[in-house]
Amino acid sequence: MGHIWEFEAPARVLSHASAVGREEFLGPLGSLFDYHDESDRFGAKTWEKAEGALGATVFNLALGRAGLSHTAIDLLLAGDLQNQCVASSGGLSVFGVPYLGLYGACSTFVEGLLVSALALNAAQPLSRVAVVTTSHNCAAERQFRLPLEYGGQRTPTAQWTATAGGCLLLERGRQGVCLTAGMAGRMVDGGVSDAANMGAAMAPAAADSLVRWFRESGESPTDYDAIITGDLGQEGSEILSDLLAMKGLSLSDRHRDCGVLLYDRARQDVHAGGSGCGCCASVTAALFLPQLLRGEMRRVLLMATGALMSPTSVQQGGSIVGIAPIVRMEVLEK
Amino acid sequence: MGHIWEFEAPARVLSHASAVGREEFLGPLGSLFDYHDESDRFGAKTWEKAEGALGATVFNLALGRAGLSHTAIDLLLAGDLQNQCVASSGGLSVFGVPYLGLYGACSTFVEGLLVSALALNAAQPLSRVAVVTTSHNCAAERQFRLPLEYGGQRTPTAQWTATAGGCLLLERGRQGVCLTAGMAGRMVDGGVSDAANMGAAMAPAAADSLVRWFRESGESPTDYDAIITGDLGQEGSEILSDLLAMKGLSLSDRHRDCGVLLYDRARQDVHAGGSGCGCCASVTAALFLPQLLRGEMRRVLLMATGALMSPTSVQQGGSIVGIAPIVRMEVLEK
Repeated sequence: MGHIWEFEAPARVLSHASAVGREEFLGPLGSLFDYHDESDRFGAKTWEKAEGALGATVFNLALGRAGLSHTAIDLLLAGDLQNQCVASSGGLSVFGVPYLGLYGACSTFVEGLLVSALALNAAQPLSRVAVVTTSHNCAAERQFRLPLEYGGQRTPTAQWTATAGGCLLLERGRQGVCLTAGMAGRMVDGGVSDAANMGAAMAPAAADSLVRWFRESGESPTDYDAIITGDLGQEGSEILSDLLAMKGLSLSDRHRDCGVLLYDRARQDVHAGGSGCGCCASVTAALFLPQLLRGEMRRVLLMATGALMSPTSVQQGGSIVGIAPIVRMEVLEK
Repeated sequence: MGHIWEFEAPARVLSHASAVGREEFLGPLGSLFDYHDESDRFGAKTWEKAEGALGATVFNLALGRAGLSHTAIDLLLAGDLQNQCVASSGGLSVFGVPYLGLYGACSTFVEGLLVSALALNAAQPLSRVAVVTTSHNCAAERQFRLPLEYGGQRTPTAQWTATAGGCLLLERGRQGVCLTAGMAGRMVDGGVSDAANMGAAMAPAAADSLVRWFRESGESPTDYDAIITGDLGQEGSEILSDLLAMKGLSLSDRHRDCGVLLYDRARQDVHAGGSGCGCCASVTAALFLPQLLRGEMRRVLLMATGALMSPTSVQQGGSIVGIAPIVRMEVLEK
């Protein structure tokens, strides 16, 4: 139980794309994203549909970069934070690509990469897979917290759901940036029931996954150019560091958190940092993947973190369960 | 795009379990379920948590039938209809089994079987996988429609979300009841926006999947002992038959729908029949799998159907997107 999955046939990244809203464009990574919409609306009339359109945008951009039609994709793996994942189904149904919907909260992007690697290692006629995840600040705020018009005060530990999406296209192959191993996360209930402190809720699961990874692999964090986490934010990153220290593990200077990187916390009012299914996806597609493609990094661990909760479960006094799946991405040369 | 996946290493069903609420126990299949709770509460204080407890119940029952501890399970695939799938995370986190959350609406059970077959065909150390899906009538009614206390009138095409859950444990192997092939569904938007007619919303996706299956395989429905659909209900089953007839395909006497079978529609007030993630899962585990194990059937197609929508997407005038993944289950002898 809880082993690392080594992929005998690695899944290679064929193409990638990212798109964001205005606030993310104004952050330190702004110029790296393939597309941004100043209005955050992506041509749609509601925030919910805007998120669907954002997913379609990154899928189209990734197809375009690869010079492929959607008919060349055998399987689409997607997910989002909206109730019943309707951003993914609403935005992507038009393509008619065979679909498996995923739900891992903000960890869905790495969950998608894991399933895509399983799929490309498994069934013979399956040759190309797309992973798409999105989030939208305005859709998430009114679903999980309060309508924007209310102007509610946010706590210092609160994170800012990113208006962002990312897509990776993957195929069988062992050249270029490849997924060579992965591990599913275990659901860890750290007893946190504060829905305005997702970092604290997710950090125990992140620590659990990293401890299991390094114990089983015998590797150390310095064997990697970066240990990337999805959206622990400032609060969750500090808690992760403390939890790992108790287990004698230090990520030292290798740790990068997409939620911390996405915004300039001194200048932008995002409190503990970014979050959402699109945070890790967009930052991976815009920042880390190009660094791997350019050879500036050779080997990274990508671990997204998710908080498995709903407003109802929190109102009923339930604690927030964290989860943190991992994939190893490395540059392979033929 | 849209091919059948033939599983070179079939996934064999190692164990199974089902559990239901009172209404399902009073139906024609009542005596076949492993467990039922007269109160529908499964020991929990809220309907939402009751669904989580129901998931834990079927997982425990399936483990018990196999004589296994949960530590023998490498991967848990689960999903439900609650917002952010909190029935699955809330009920199953306690086991600490590596987890991938799925969302395919009422098609989630077959989606889980597909991913389990991919996983067992792929990564070497992955040897045993569990699939758990659940639904709860009272949790679904107040989330999707109206609180029970309101006593709302239901339309004739409405279906009854089953209080039910099912679990299958699978391992690598080619003896006994095995998953030998599968196909992911495509999202099909038939233009139906009536949330009280899920059968009509899902039937076009069901027809799309079956037409693709029989076209590619060259098989005919009579090559199977049964073509099982998840929860089209009476309305959706009739529409499926009409849609297939337009394509020159007839399921003749092979069609069985779990939603039609679960209740006695003449005696129970369920209108068009059962639905929910637990409908197909519980009926498969309680009725069809034992028939395969006893040799009364040798080869079936199991196609679950899902309606990808949320109350918000319906309120915003969106149509309901259907999806229908398929697995082939057959008895293999060593």
